[in-house]
Amino acid sequence: MSPNPIRYVTKVDLTKPGDAQPQVHNRWHPDVPFSETIEPGETVKIECLDWTGNQIGNNDSADDIKDVDLTRIHYLSGPFNITGALPGDVLVVEIKDVQPLDRQPWGYCGIFHKSNGGGFLDRFYPEAAKAIFDFEGIHATSRHIPHTKFTGLIHPGIMGTAPSEAVLKEWNSREGELKDSIQHAHDTSVANLPEPINAHCGSAEGDLIDKIAKEGARTIPGRPEHGGNCDIKNLSRGSKCYFPVYVKGAKLSVGDLHFSQGDGEISFCGAIEMAGVLTIKTSIIPGGMERLALKSPIFIPGDVQNHYGPSRYLTFEGFSVNEKGEQEFLCATTAYRQACIRAIEYLRRYGYTDYQIYLLLSSAPIEGHIAGIVDVPNACTTLGVPLDIFDFDIRPEALPVKLDMGSCALVKGADHKLTYDFKPFKA
Amino acid sequence: MSPNPIRYVTKVDLTKPGDAQPQVHNRWHPDVPFSETIEPGETVKIECLDWTGNQIGNNDSADDIKDVDLTRIHYLSGPFNITGALPGDVLVVEIKDVQPLDRQPWGYCGIFHKSNGGGFLDRFYPEAAKAIFDFEGIHATSRHIPHTKFTGLIHPGIMGTAPSEAVLKEWNSREGELKDSIQHAHDTSVANLPEPINAHCGSAEGDLIDKIAKEGARTIPGRPEHGGNCDIKNLSRGSKCYFPVYVKGAKLSVGDLHFSQGDGEISFCGAIEMAGVLTIKTSIIPGGMERLALKSPIFIPGDVQNHYGPSRYLTFEGFSVNEKGEQEFLCATTAYRQACIRAIEYLRRYGYTDYQIYLLLSSAPIEGHIAGIVDVPNACTTLGVPLDIFDFDIRPEALPVKLDMGSCALVKGADHKLTYDFKPFKA
Amino acid sequence: MSPNPIRYVTKVDLTKPGDAQPQVHNRWHPDVPFSETIEPGETVKIECLDWTGNQIGNNDSADDIKDVDLTRIHYLSGPFNITGALPGDVLVVEIKDVQPLDRQPWGYCGIFHKSNGGGFLDRFYPEAAKAIFDFEGIHATSRHIPHTKFTGLIHPGIMGTAPSEAVLKEWNSREGELKDSIQHAHDTSVANLPEPINAHCGSAEGDLIDKIAKEGARTIPGRPEHGGNCDIKNLSRGSKCYFPVYVKGAKLSVGDLHFSQGDGEISFCGAIEMAGVLTIKTSIIPGGMERLALKSPIFIPGDVQNHYGPSRYLTFEGFSVNEKGEQEFLCATTAYRQACIRAIEYLRRYGYTDYQIYLLLSSAPIEGHIAGIVDVPNACTTLGVPLDIFDFDIRPEALPVKLDMGSCALVKGADHKLTYDFKPFKA
Amino acid sequence: MSPNPIRYVTKVDLTKPGDAQPQVHNRWHPDVPFSETIEPGETVKIECLDWTGNQIGNNDSADDIKDVDLTRIHYLSGPFNITGALPGDVLVVEIKDVQPLDRQPWGYCGIFHKSNGGGFLDRFYPEAAKAIFDFEGIHATSRHIPHTKFTGLIHPGIMGTAPSEAVLKEWNSREGELKDSIQHAHDTSVANLPEPINAHCGSAEGDLIDKIAKEGARTIPGRPEHGGNCDIKNLSRGSKCYFPVYVKGAKLSVGDLHFSQGDGEISFCGAIEMAGVLTIKTSIIPGGMERLALKSPIFIPGDVQNHYGPSRYLTFEGFSVNEKGEQEFLCATTAYRQACIRAIEYLRRYGYTDYQIYLLLSSAPIEGHIAGIVDVPNACTTLGVPLDIFDFDIRPEALPVKLDMGSCALVKGADHKLTYDFKPFKA
Repeated sequence: MSPNPIRYVTKVDLTKPGDAQPQVHNRWHPDVPFSETIEPGETVKIECLDWTGNQIGNNDSADDIKDVDLTRIHYLSGPFNITGALPGDVLVVEIKDVQPLDRQPWGYCGIFHKSNGGGFLDRFYPEAAKAIFDFEGIHATSRHIPHTKFTGLIHPGIMGTAPSEAVLKEWNSREGELKDSIQHAHDTSVANLPEPINAHCGSAEGDLIDKIAKEGARTIPGRPEHGGNCDIKNLSRGSKCYFPVYVKGAKLSVGDLHFSQGDGEISFCGAIEMAGVLTIKTSIIPGGMERLALKSPIFIPGDVQNHYGPSRYLTFEGFSVNEKGEQEFLCATTAYRQACIRAIEYLRRYGYTDYQIYLLLSSAPIEGHIAGIVDVPNACTTLGVPLDIFDFDIRPEALPVKLDMGSCALVKGADHKLTYDFKPFKA
Repeated sequence: MSPNPIRYVTKVDLTKPGDAQPQVHNRWHPDVPFSETIEPGETVKIECLDWTGNQIGNNDSADDIKDVDLTRIHYLSGPFNITGALPGDVLVVEIKDVQPLDRQPWGYCGIFHKSNGGGFLDRFYPEAAKAIFDFEGIHATSRHIPHTKFTGLIHPGIMGTAPSEAVLKEWNSREGELKDSIQHAHDTSVANLPEPINAHCGSAEGDLIDKIAKEGARTIPGRPEHGGNCDIKNLSRGSKCYFPVYVKGAKLSVGDLHFSQGDGEISFCGAIEMAGVLTIKTSIIPGGMERLALKSPIFIPGDVQNHYGPSRYLTFEGFSVNEKGEQEFLCATTAYRQACIRAIEYLRRYGYTDYQIYLLLSSAPIEGHIAGIVDVPNACTTLGVPLDIFDFDIRPEALPVKLDMGSCALVKGADHKLTYDFKPFKA
Repeated sequence: MSPNPIRYVTKVDLTKPGDAQPQVHNRWHPDVPFSETIEPGETVKIECLDWTGNQIGNNDSADDIKDVDLTRIHYLSGPFNITGALPGDVLVVEIKDVQPLDRQPWGYCGIFHKSNGGGFLDRFYPEAAKAIFDFEGIHATSRHIPHTKFTGLIHPGIMGTAPSEAVLKEWNSREGELKDSIQHAHDTSVANLPEPINAHCGSAEGDLIDKIAKEGARTIPGRPEHGGNCDIKNLSRGSKCYFPVYVKGAKLSVGDLHFSQGDGEISFCGAIEMAGVLTIKTSIIPGGMERLALKSPIFIPGDVQNHYGPSRYLTFEGFSVNEKGEQEFLCATTAYRQACIRAIEYLRRYGYTDYQIYLLLSSAPIEGHIAGIVDVPNACTTLGVPLDIFDFDIRPEALPVKLDMGSCALVKGADHKLTYDFKPFKA
Repeated sequence: MSPNPIRYVTKVDLTKPGDAQPQVHNRWHPDVPFSETIEPGETVKIECLDWTGNQIGNNDSADDIKDVDLTRIHYLSGPFNITGALPGDVLVVEIKDVQPLDRQPWGYCGIFHKSNGGGFLDRFYPEAAKAIFDFEGIHATSRHIPHTKFTGLIHPGIMGTAPSEAVLKEWNSREGELKDSIQHAHDTSVANLPEPINAHCGSAEGDLIDKIAKEGARTIPGRPEHGGNCDIKNLSRGSKCYFPVYVKGAKLSVGDLHFSQGDGEISFCGAIEMAGVLTIKTSIIPGGMERLALKSPIFIPGDVQNHYGPSRYLTFEGFSVNEKGEQEFLCATTAYRQACIRAIEYLRRYGYTDYQIYLLLSSAPIEGHIAGIVDVPNACTTLGVPLDIFDFDIRPEALPVKLDMGSCALVKGADHKLTYDFKPFKA
C-alpha cells in the first residue's frame, strides 16, 4: 500500500560468473546462510541469473552449449528468511510476476551434447545445438527457428524451501542407492550426488563452505519434499504455491527462470532460459503441513496463461512401444518420447531440421498429457502443438509450404547428421 | 444437406448381452466382416453399448463390478467399410457429437478388484467399488460421491482402424515377448494375448470365427499403429482425427463411450462408462500415411471442451520417488501415481473415503500433465483438480467443511479398510 | 437419481401450426392456464417449436420469410406450474441442455423484408433473404453461406415467468406511451401492442381466451421484469438463471430456440432458428426478490461455451457517427450498427454478398461489446468475428482468396441490389 | 535480433506537469511536429504519462479528482514518424507489451463530479470519488475497495494516427453541429470543441502553436476515422492493430494507459489510470485502406488475456426501460446503464457503498455485451461480473457475508448521500 517502488531483495550482475555473487547459491542445504529477510505480506522483487550463470552467449554457435560446465549451474537467489516460518508450517508464495531484465532482452534454448548433459532424445540427437530467442514484450521469436512466434508462459523452473538435515540425508541416500543399482546400465548419469567442485554456498564462510559443499544436494532434480527444479510451465505468473517448511525461516530459494517451456522441457536446457526478475508475496499457514496433509508442494495457477482455445492444437499420440518396436509396460516416459518423435516426423515436412523441432518442442508451450495409464501394457500420452505459434498453417489438409528454415546454431565445424531415421512401423 | 434425420448405421439393444449382437465385435482382426458401409462425406450415427455389454447395473452394490467377466468386454460398433479407403491412406473422422442414450440416462465408474482387472492404485486399494452417475443434460452427479457435479467432456474411449495381417502379427508377437519376459514378476496380468473364449467376431461365421478368435488382438491396450483404446479425454466432440489405413475399407470400429474421464483413467473402469450414440463424418486423404509421415493417429480437438480458466485448478505435484520412498529413474508413471496419492491425502479432509476420491479422480475432468521429464532422476508430473466440480471450496485457505459424504457402492458384506496409510515423508 | 428416461413435460408436433397445439401459447398473461406441473428438483425435458410455428421450409427460396405471418410467432412451451413458487420468490432454472430434434436436423436464419418485420440494417438491406443450416452434431453449415462452419452456442431465445396483472398493465402502458410519442417518425413498428388476432392462449377456453387475447403482452421484446425474449447467446447449456416470480406457480414459459446467434441477433429472425428440446431443473429461493434485490433476471453461464481463444477474433470498431456521417450522442446502438457495416465492407473481399454477411453476422458466434460509453460524444463498440468459423484465412495479411460463394436464398424473381454503397469517409 | 536493450523513443517525467514536456501533446492535428522516428520492423518502447499528466495523488482524498483540470489531459506520447507510411496506407501496430513504471507502482480510478466531467451514472452519483490501486506484479488491489483483487488486462486507452486536414475539419464540423443542436437539452457538455486554453502542441513553436491550439481536435472521443480514445479493454498486450494513415509518416500517438478497465469505462476516469511504458512494433500495408476497405481501425487481440472460464461470471441483464420506468426505443446505452444499476443494487448486500461499486464496475474486467438489439422496443445488454475478483462468494446461493468494506476516497468534508434509491419495479 505504499506508493514507493517495490523493494528488491536480490540484484544480480550479468557480467560476472554466478559463483562470484554471494546472494546466490547452487546447492540445497539447511545451512546456506540467509541472503535476505522477507516479511509475510510484503511484496518484493528478486533478480535471478540465467541457470548457467552467464555461460551462454547471444551468437550463432553452439560451442558454448557443448562446453557448458554443468558443475556450475542453477545459481539460485536466496535463501530467504521468511519471518516467522517454522518447521511444519506451510509457506504460501504468490508469484506476482516474472519478467526478463530490460538490460538483457533475450534467452536461449539448448540441446546438450550426449556426453555433457544430454536430454530426452539424446539417443537420436547426441550433438549440441542452440536457439537464441529475442524478447519483444510478451513475444519471443528466434532467428534459429524461423516462422514461429509465441507468447511466453513465463515461470521459475526452480522454487523450493530448504531441506532439514533429515530430509537432506534422505535425498542423498535414496539417490545414491539408485546410482549404485542402475548406473552401470546407463551411458549418461542417472543421478548427481553431492559434489564439492564448484559448489557455491552463497555467503557461507570457512568450514561451513566445506560442509555444504560436501553434503549439499544437487539442484538438477525436483524432489517431492520441497519442489525445487520441478520445471512446471504452468507455475507461472499469478500462481499461488504452497510449500512445506522444514527449517526456521523456510529458506526459500528461486531461480532458473524460463520465458517459455513445453511440457517435459525435453531438451533439458530446454526452456527459453533467461535471467530475469520475479515479484513475490508470501504468507504462512501455521502447522499447515499437517492441516493440509501436505507432503509435496501444491499450487493454484494464475488466470492469464496464454490460451489458444482447445481446437488450436495438433495433437500427437504416443504409446509405450519404444522406437525399436519393443513393448514396454505402462511406461509413460517412453510413451511421451514416442509422441515427441511423431511430432518431429510430422513437422519435418515444412523444412525444419530435427534439431530445430527438438528445440521448438522443448521451448514452445507444448501440452503434454497423460491420457491412459491403465490399459496394459500401453500407456498413452498426448503432445499438443499449438497451431498458432507458426505463421503458416500446419494442419494436415493445408498444402505443405516449404519455407527457408535456415538452421539452428550448431557447433563449429559440425558435420553430424541432422536427421534420425526412425524405424517404420509394419504395414 | 438433407432435411431428413441422420442415418443410423448401428443400433444396439440394452437388454441383451453384447455377444448376442452381430453389429458389434470385441477383437481387432482384419477379417471381422463389415457391419455397414459409410460414404465419405456422409454424416452418420452409431449407437454403442457400454464397454461391458450391459454387465453393470444402476444399484448400490459393487458386486457386479467385482464379478465382471473381463473376457466379455469392449463390444465395438463396426467395423465400417469407408468406401474407397485403401491401405496407405489416412482416414479422417470428425466426431460430430457423442451423447448418452435417452433411454439410459446414467453411467458408472468402477474400481476393479485387484484379482479381476485391478487399476492404477490397486496395490493400495485392492477391493471393488462403484459409483453410479446420473446424467442431467450436460451434467453428471453421483449419489455415491456427494457434493460434486461436472460437465461431461464426452468422448469415445476406443476408435481405430483394423490392423493388416502384418500389423496384427506384430502386436501379438511384441506383447507376447513382454509377457514372456516380465509376467513372472507381476501379480496382475501385464498383457492380454489372443483368447478364443468369449471372442465375439461380429457377423463372422464358420471357420472365420475360429480364425479371428484365435488370432484377434485384444482390445485393452491402445496401440501406436491405429489408436484403439487410447482413452484420451480430449478426443471429444468436434475433434478431427487422422487414422492410418491398413485394410481396404479401413474397417473403422468405435466404442467404450465415456461421459467424462480424468487424464489417466486411473481406476481402469475409470471413466463414466456409458452406452451412447456417436455422430461422425469421414473423409479420406489418399496416400496420406506417407504424405503426413503418419505412423500413429493425430487429432485436432473440438472447440467446446469444458473450461474452467487456468486458475480454477488445485494442482498436485508428483515425482518419481515411489510410495516406499525409493528413487525411480525418470518414471512418469510412478510420478503420476504419486500425484494421485497426494490428491487423495488432501481430499480426505472433507470426509470422502479413499475409494470415493479414487473414483472421482478417475472420472472427473482431471488434468494430468508431464511437467519435467529430464531432471535426473526425477520425472515431475502434475494433477489438476478443478475447483468447480465441488459445491464447496477446496482451496487450502478455506475452512475445511466436514459434510456427510456417504459412501460409494461396495461389495456386499464388505469389511475392508477404506483408507491406506501412506508412509510419511521424513521431516 | 432414477435410471428411467427423463420425463417430457411438453411434446410438439412439427406438422401442425403452432396455434393448433394447446401446450404452447404466444402471449404473456397471468391467466394463461398451466400446461404442466414441475416439481423443484425434478429434471424435465421440454420440446419447443421453432419460433414461427413451422412456417419456414428447408428450401432455396426466401418467399416464406417474406410472407411470414408475424402475428403467429413465438409459440412458447408452458406456462409451467413450479410447485410452491410464490410471488416475491426467485425461481432458479438450470438449463441442463438444449438440442435440436433428431427428427429435424436443420434450422434457418432469415432477413425479414423491411415492410414485414425488418431488422437492424433494414435501411440498407430491405429485402427478404434466408439461409438454411444443416446440423451435424455440434456443428452447423449452410449451403447458403459456403466456406463457414461453426459450433452452436445453443440456447433459448425466450425464457421468462408470467407477469402479474400489475406488471402486465405497466408493460402495455409504457409501450403504448412510446408508440404514441414516436411511431409517427418511424416507418417500421416501434412497439407491438396487444393484438387479439392470432393470439394463442394455450389451453384457455371461452371468455378467458378473449381476455388474454385482448390484454396479453406481445412476445417480441425482452422486458426487464422477467427476461422473456432477451436473446442472450451466452444463456446457453449449463446456465443457472434467476427469475423474479410474480404469480403463484411462477408460470415459466420457454421457446424460440437458437442453435447459434451472434451478439445483437441483428437480422431479427437472426439466430439459427430451430425446433428443439430443452432439459431443465428448477429450484426456489423463497423471498428471493428482496433478499437478492432482484428486479431483472440474472444468470451464471455454463462452462462449455465454444471458445476460440482471445486472439482468434478479427475485431471491428464502431462509433456513434452514423452512416450519413452525422454525429450522434453516446448512442451504443448506432455505434454497433457501424461496427456491423465495417464488417460487411471487409468481408465482401472474399466474394460474399452483403446479404450473406448480414446473415452470417446474425447467426454466427459474433462477440459484440460495449467498449467505451462515456467519451462524449462517441460511444465505441466492438464486433469480433471468429477467425475459425471460416475455412480460409480472413486476416488482413493473408492473400484474399476469391471463392465461389454462391448465394443465400432470395425471393422468387428477386431483382434487387445485393450491395449497399456506404458513404466513404473523408480522407 | 539485437542483444541490446530495446530503444526508448519516449521518456516521461513524473514530477513535471504534462505541458512542460515537449515529447507529448494533447490535441489531434496534422501539424503537431514529429517527436521521434520509428522504422517499420523496429521494436521500441514508449513511456506515457497518466492521462491527467500527474494531477492525481496516491492519497485518501478525492479532492484532486473533484478539482481536476480537464483542459489539461490526455498527454499523448508522439506523434511518431513511421518511416515510409503514406496516406492511404494501413499502419499495423503490434502492442508487444504494456507495463506500469517500476518507479510508480500504483494507479487510480476516479468518479468525476457531475459539474466537472461527470460519468455514465452521474445523474445518480454526482459527487467525486476515488480509489487508489496498488500494483503487485500482474495484480491490482485497492485499499478503497477491500476484498477484491484482479489481474490487469493492461492496455492503452488511446492510440491513433493523425487526421488529415480534411478529416480534422470533418470532426470539428460534425461535433459542432451536434453541440449546436442538442447542448441546450443537457446539463453536461455533449461535445468538446477546439479550445486553445492549455492546448499542448508538443514541440511546436511560434505561430504553429496558435494554429494547432485553435484547430486541434480534442482527445476525449474516440473517432471512427482513426480510433483515438476508443477505450477498448481487449486492445491489450499482443494485439495487432490496423490503422488508416492520413498523413505522411502516419503520426501515431499513444497514451492514457490503463492497468485494467471494465467494458464501458463507466465512471469516465474509469479505468485504473496509470503512467507506464508500451512496447510496440510497426509495419505498413501499402494502399491498405482500399485493399482492406478499411475506414475504421480493426484489430486482432493477443492470446494472454485474463480468463476466468465462462461460468465464472454473475451476469446482469439490462433493458432499454430507463430508471424512471419509461420505455426507450432500442437504446443500448440506456440498457447498459440499467445493467449497471442492477449490479449496484445486488452488490450492496455485501456492504459496499454505491460509489465503491461504481468504481469497481469501471475498473475491473467487467464484460459488457450487446445481447439483443432488434426486439422492439427493447435493446438487451448484459454485464458480467467475474466471480473471481472477490475473495468471498458472490453467488446468489452463498450466504451474504457482511464484511468491513471501509470506504472509497471522498472529497474533504463530504456529507453527501452514498446511496441512490432506484425506483422499484411494479410487482
